[in-house]
Amino acid sequence: MVTAISGFEPTSLSLVAELIGTAVFAASGASAAVGKRLDLFGVVVIGTLCALGGGAVRDILIDAKPLVLTDWRYPLVAVLASLVVFRFHPALSRMRPTMLVLDAAGLALFTVVGTLKGLDYGFAVYAACIVGVLSGIGGGILRDVLVQEIPAVLREDFYAMAAVIGAIIVSVGARWESQIGHWTLMLIAIATIFVVRMVAIRYRWQAPKPNI
Amino acid sequence: MVTAISGFEPTSLSLVAELIGTAVFAASGASAAVGKRLDLFGVVVIGTLCALGGGAVRDILIDAKPLVLTDWRYPLVAVLASLVVFRFHPALSRMRPTMLVLDAAGLALFTVVGTLKGLDYGFAVYAACIVGVLSGIGGGILRDVLVQEIPAVLREDFYAMAAVIGAIIVSVGARWESQIGHWTLMLIAIATIFVVRMVAIRYRWQAPKPNI
Amino acid sequence: MVTAISGFEPTSLSLVAELIGTAVFAASGASAAVGKRLDLFGVVVIGTLCALGGGAVRDILIDAKPLVLTDWRYPLVAVLASLVVFRFHPALSRMRPTMLVLDAAGLALFTVVGTLKGLDYGFAVYAACIVGVLSGIGGGILRDVLVQEIPAVLREDFYAMAAVIGAIIVSVGARWESQIGHWTLMLIAIATIFVVRMVAIRYRWQAPKPNI
Repeated sequence: MVTAISGFEPTSLSLVAELIGTAVFAASGASAAVGKRLDLFGVVVIGTLCALGGGAVRDILIDAKPLVLTDWRYPLVAVLASLVVFRFHPALSRMRPTMLVLDAAGLALFTVVGTLKGLDYGFAVYAACIVGVLSGIGGGILRDVLVQEIPAVLREDFYAMAAVIGAIIVSVGARWESQIGHWTLMLIAIATIFVVRMVAIRYRWQAPKPNI
Repeated sequence: MVTAISGFEPTSLSLVAELIGTAVFAASGASAAVGKRLDLFGVVVIGTLCALGGGAVRDILIDAKPLVLTDWRYPLVAVLASLVVFRFHPALSRMRPTMLVLDAAGLALFTVVGTLKGLDYGFAVYAACIVGVLSGIGGGILRDVLVQEIPAVLREDFYAMAAVIGAIIVSVGARWESQIGHWTLMLIAIATIFVVRMVAIRYRWQAPKPNI
Repeated sequence: MVTAISGFEPTSLSLVAELIGTAVFAASGASAAVGKRLDLFGVVVIGTLCALGGGAVRDILIDAKPLVLTDWRYPLVAVLASLVVFRFHPALSRMRPTMLVLDAAGLALFTVVGTLKGLDYGFAVYAACIVGVLSGIGGGILRDVLVQEIPAVLREDFYAMAAVIGAIIVSVGARWESQIGHWTLMLIAIATIFVVRMVAIRYRWQAPKPNI
């Protein structure tokens, strides 16, 4: 078990970070739904799915119990964040730069946690990377499919590549986890994804396009 | 086990009701597919998916064997209903009010049965509600995604809210099931969803929209 | 176990055939993504999903470990084939007749292998057919949903019908497998799907459309 670390109780820290990620991703989904003029229920569903869909896909693939059905705090936070966006979205849309930063943090966190969960369930390094990247980007893909957009992550920028890089760091690094330390490794991977994503936004990096 | 009730053999009644729900949902999916000018196979697939997709998503989430793969009567009824729509759709489109009533009955039934299945599999009240609502609305969402519409349930009216109310009734009420009685509880929840949905159609209730 | 045949080592043959099918389906997905001007990552994801998505849906439904997470050769071949399309697509688009032939071979192979896997996991004949057809057409449906098209398989031609016919042959024939022989049965079913598909392309067969 990669996550069983003795002599240190990080559960609450990790939980708080994950719940922040959940809130941010829910806000991102709810904003897209508001933009499509969906009703209250639609905003809540898209927000919740965006926040928890990536993890649900991950859990279905690795045959874990879906987190959304076993810990009520995740759906509660997702629903509340969606309701806040539904009510206050004009003010929130002025906070777009802040949202981009939080979204990058959510991507970093979800990807790393998902990759570690894949390793915990005994999957190979490459498979844990697939599972981790899906955890990070899956919710956004579901959001875009439901609001009838080609998933932004597949079209626009250096979003998914950042997740891939982080997933590789954490899954390869896990072999030397006893030397590196569990939390050091996680922090390196999370920071890498976050920084790559921020730099990509700042300098408008784009993944290469096909020449047609 | 919530569903194990002694001294009473309701299986056939419950089965007939569920098969009617399956046929109605299949007809709804097949009608959407006919409207998009899909071919025979497309009509049958969308009809079947609309009828059985919600239950399949439920079964995957709670890690049950998908009903569609274990009881041939469900896919058979779904395929037959889709074929009937394919052949007779002009006549059926004149029956739209009837279809709306049957669809509300299907929604009520699938939501309640799905919620109970979630409880049976040991999930918490809130999780059983999620599972039940997905059972009721999931098929319609899959239908709309495949025919390239934003899911109607997320956009238009008081459809999903009715399912949420019914799922809460049945999952909370299950705690006092021995006093209320299994079938009384089911009937109350089914009737509530059905009546809320009918009243919502009659008075054009809508879930609130965001103010933009 | 349907697939346990003594005195003959066909694994490598079967594996090579499946990897060719994977490459062809990945190329088909990557071509669609290039046509939508997705970036490098989008092309790779759509290509991989098109190649491996049908099998993943199958494995989730029958509760098997997803092949994509247990055998690295499948995702590797899918990613490589997608990269080749990304780099060389103008040349490849001149090979469209060849691609159609290879795609028909992929459809035949994936459907038959998927149906056999369904039988192996103890599902009934009809359920194994559903699972097998989903293995064959599921990847293409995911591809079309992500690039925002109504799935071609539901709209255009005699694609899915060929898969249905082959799945029925292999799942019904499995009862007399000891007389027919495992590989003879597989070859008959694969050849049937392939020939039906080729004839359908040649003579522009279409599944019937609804009369409106």
